[in-house]
Amino acid sequence: MTVDEQERTESPRSKRRMILDAAIDNFGGVGFEHTKWAKIADEVGIGQTALYHYFESKVHCLLTIMSTELERSLERTRAVTADVEDPTERIRAAVAAAFDVTQREALQARILMSHQDLLVGERPSKREEAERGRARDLVREIEHEWAGMIKAARPKGGADEVVLARLMLGMINSVWRWYRPKGAHPLTEISGVVVDSCARLIA
Amino acid sequence: MTVDEQERTESPRSKRRMILDAAIDNFGGVGFEHTKWAKIADEVGIGQTALYHYFESKVHCLLTIMSTELERSLERTRAVTADVEDPTERIRAAVAAAFDVTQREALQARILMSHQDLLVGERPSKREEAERGRARDLVREIEHEWAGMIKAARPKGGADEVVLARLMLGMINSVWRWYRPKGAHPLTEISGVVVDSCARLIA
Repeated sequence: MTVDEQERTESPRSKRRMILDAAIDNFGGVGFEHTKWAKIADEVGIGQTALYHYFESKVHCLLTIMSTELERSLERTRAVTADVEDPTERIRAAVAAAFDVTQREALQARILMSHQDLLVGERPSKREEAERGRARDLVREIEHEWAGMIKAARPKGGADEVVLARLMLGMINSVWRWYRPKGAHPLTEISGVVVDSCARLIA
Repeated sequence: MTVDEQERTESPRSKRRMILDAAIDNFGGVGFEHTKWAKIADEVGIGQTALYHYFESKVHCLLTIMSTELERSLERTRAVTADVEDPTERIRAAVAAAFDVTQREALQARILMSHQDLLVGERPSKREEAERGRARDLVREIEHEWAGMIKAARPKGGADEVVLARLMLGMINSVWRWYRPKGAHPLTEISGVVVDSCARLIA
């Protein structure tokens, strides 16, 4: 592969990643509303036209951050539970993994939580709508994954497992609303309480 | 009391209520972004200047809907638990009451959930900032109320009761994200599952 070919095949992907990272830091820091879209281009060192090539709008970028985080979390859940035999231990591992995140992933999870209403209404633009569709599909896939784990852990059945999966995920995700890296409760403490709480829900 | 006096003392309050109701129906229906502020004035039958007298902006109205819903829910929790002696039964009563709502209250709860990120950053306007402060104080009061109930229900202690209160409230409130009046799961079913789940968290 020549340097030129490498440039063409690898660089776009890493530029895209750089834009996403800069957007996560800004949206998660000063907030989506207060982030100037032009500032992202500046930080990454590209022009507005090049930025547009990757994301046609700030909302398009936000929706991509959301679907990327959903995808990451689904893949992570599958990876950490793949080799766990015991159904209850599988859920405990999945919950613990939800809080075993880097600082940027925590920010990304918080951005996802704060903008979930964006997934409700149809988007006027084709690219935004495609990304919204991807995010919605992932939400459904995640619910399905957790409902399956719950079903396996309760041989005698009980409340509808989809409802219980949504409640569990609702409880887990609600943490990102109030958790702050320098807050009164470290993530390891919170993780322990949520793991224990989710185990109680299926006991 | 003359008709004029009645007009002065009662009318402003009911106009305010009418504006809030119209805003709840619109924000909860087509969404906050898609609601034209002028449309609210039209629906209530007042001019823009009169509307401004009550709320200086669409955000000011949204923040008021949020703090009003928080206040209603806190008062409701206190009312339904006041005469319940048993600490676990008190929590069950509080959770059940959270779902014993009118359609408009359900919309209001959903609006509150969708816009919680609005409570994070300071508002540039004085009136908006005052309403945001009121909402934040109420969130803290609600957490404190639930933490107290949890503490009473667990004589042997356990995980930090503030963390557990936030998780419980996070689980309860997450329902408003996905619950739809004509959806697959009626509110009575959901309520039963959440009451049972919260009881398990403190068992």
